[in-house]
Amino acid sequence: MKITCSKQSLTNGIGIVSRAVPVNTTMPILKYILINAAGGEIRLTANDTDLGIETVIEGVIETSGIAAIEASVLSEAVRKMPDGDIHIDINEKDYTVHLTCDTEKIDFQITGTSGDDFTYLPEIEKKEPVEISMLAFKDMVRQTAFSLNANNENNRTTTGFDMIIYGDYMRLTTLDGHRVSIRNVDFGKEYEKQEVIIPGKTLKEISAIIPSDAEKFVSIYITDNHISFEFDNTVVVSRLIDGEYINVDKMITSEYKTKVVIDKKRLANSIDRSLFFSKEGNKKPIVVDIKEGVLNIQIKSSTGGLNEDIEIEKEGNDLTIGFNPKFVLDALKAIDDDEVTLYFINSISPVYIKDEKETYIYMILPINLS
Amino acid sequence: MKITCSKQSLTNGIGIVSRAVPVNTTMPILKYILINAAGGEIRLTANDTDLGIETVIEGVIETSGIAAIEASVLSEAVRKMPDGDIHIDINEKDYTVHLTCDTEKIDFQITGTSGDDFTYLPEIEKKEPVEISMLAFKDMVRQTAFSLNANNENNRTTTGFDMIIYGDYMRLTTLDGHRVSIRNVDFGKEYEKQEVIIPGKTLKEISAIIPSDAEKFVSIYITDNHISFEFDNTVVVSRLIDGEYINVDKMITSEYKTKVVIDKKRLANSIDRSLFFSKEGNKKPIVVDIKEGVLNIQIKSSTGGLNEDIEIEKEGNDLTIGFNPKFVLDALKAIDDDEVTLYFINSISPVYIKDEKETYIYMILPINLS
Repeated sequence: MKITCSKQSLTNGIGIVSRAVPVNTTMPILKYILINAAGGEIRLTANDTDLGIETVIEGVIETSGIAAIEASVLSEAVRKMPDGDIHIDINEKDYTVHLTCDTEKIDFQITGTSGDDFTYLPEIEKKEPVEISMLAFKDMVRQTAFSLNANNENNRTTTGFDMIIYGDYMRLTTLDGHRVSIRNVDFGKEYEKQEVIIPGKTLKEISAIIPSDAEKFVSIYITDNHISFEFDNTVVVSRLIDGEYINVDKMITSEYKTKVVIDKKRLANSIDRSLFFSKEGNKKPIVVDIKEGVLNIQIKSSTGGLNEDIEIEKEGNDLTIGFNPKFVLDALKAIDDDEVTLYFINSISPVYIKDEKETYIYMILPINLS
Repeated sequence: MKITCSKQSLTNGIGIVSRAVPVNTTMPILKYILINAAGGEIRLTANDTDLGIETVIEGVIETSGIAAIEASVLSEAVRKMPDGDIHIDINEKDYTVHLTCDTEKIDFQITGTSGDDFTYLPEIEKKEPVEISMLAFKDMVRQTAFSLNANNENNRTTTGFDMIIYGDYMRLTTLDGHRVSIRNVDFGKEYEKQEVIIPGKTLKEISAIIPSDAEKFVSIYITDNHISFEFDNTVVVSRLIDGEYINVDKMITSEYKTKVVIDKKRLANSIDRSLFFSKEGNKKPIVVDIKEGVLNIQIKSSTGGLNEDIEIEKEGNDLTIGFNPKFVLDALKAIDDDEVTLYFINSISPVYIKDEKETYIYMILPINLS
């Protein structure tokens, strides 16, 4: 194989597919990137068998061929070459790889392997895709990713994102034992109802390589066991998690006894300060005291404490309630609005932070103060 | 004590004196910053007994007093307060510390202690100071710091910077078993001859807090056991290392058999690439082959290798010589010139990288290739 690509396009392509290269694995081939130069296209692929990514990069093929190179080796070799065009020349007998360039007399030699053991991406049957703006999809993932269960042997479904497509909206949900995070996006177009659970890690990796572009779209294809995302010159295929997701709708209520409108930044800064005292003691709660026009936050530790008053608009009952400050801060950080509205029922029921259109709903369980 | 300072000046002051707060210590008081508000001056001090730093910050004293607060606690508390003025109110009975501000109703309470156990900076007898531009001094430290011996039980002097003031120049020298780094700066003024050895760690910390200002000066005072640096509102006192420094002048020669002028960036990039192959094998050397008009660099490893030609101007004999690439790269990184000149004697003698005026001399021992 003999190809020429700009350092820039190689770097981008390697960066994209490397998201599917596992940090630790007992199967060496999973650490490799497959380079397939054929039919006028230079295709890079990596596949850890849960997540597979393929991208086509710009370049010129002088001689077609297939070879695999360890991702970290290829990435660093390319990084260390001068800017501009890089020639990659792979001997398909011993898989020695020569990187050269026109501007300097450099021969950078690394070793690859054949692509024979490489697992290609599974074929995805393509019906009508679901299309969503790149930026909207990235935002949804970011705004829910923080409340995934990292591990749950008893119920693997909670380690994934629940994705529901229902008529004209897409809903992404995550939950751990203490909170539920929901994001809704309008398509402006009707789709058949579908529900899948996408592994947490893989959807976070996918979201990281989707460009932040509001004008361009991601095409999503769903099969029984896989979900595929297509954007720009890239195809990503992820396995789905088997099982039935917890019925979140049953946990959400629109009833409330206390409604608070508050400056989001002011509240987030206050809770950030409270973390100073929460980290010492083991998960010490903040005590939130809501009265007419003012929300008081207090936390005490052996070495000090915090006491703050924040102006609010209040509707309904006064209330004293405790929270793990980190959980409240996580939700606030995921909200882009300047003002947020908090809905409470009583001191042992969850708080709901949501906007009027319910584009977001963050439910957080309180900590019993008594 | 009751004082008001801007968040900015507190943050700066804490940042400066925190350089003298040890990361690990069995003496808790060393982790504290002393706040001394008296005589119209708010003075912050930290002292790990090898290195002590004192700085005066701007602010208003309502009630004078002295107290010590753990550096990390004070630093984070100030960081978490809103921008603008911060009031610090310390009860000198129980040493509770209240941080408040005017813009928000925040009471951030931490705990301090009395300053009774605190070790003040040693008094330095002040004769005529040696004055050097802040920027020039910072540069000298950065450009020699990399070849300090981190530890040497047999000869502690090699863990420090040798500073010689001799007539109208200052010379800073560091060395480990493989190389010597020397920087000279002209004062444009005559001083008495003095030679001291400054602990490596402390001089690196001092250099980090000296602003990069070419127009302003650092005043240096030397006594038998201490060296003191004064700049802006800050005083730094460091212990000196006892002992006699290796006679470096005996190791330096201006004789050479091969002289090479080379583009510094081109050479540095090449050596940086070679590190890719040096890290695998244990300290694998680069082989440098010097001929008329061209310097060839080669390195081989089990998985590949590098072979580069770089254009040079050569004077004298052809030569093949081996080096630890990291040592050459360290020296090149410390040089700001576009072109560097290398002086060789033979394949078992050191290379000297130096400019004509000898503002820098980097001596690096070769690796025997046979």
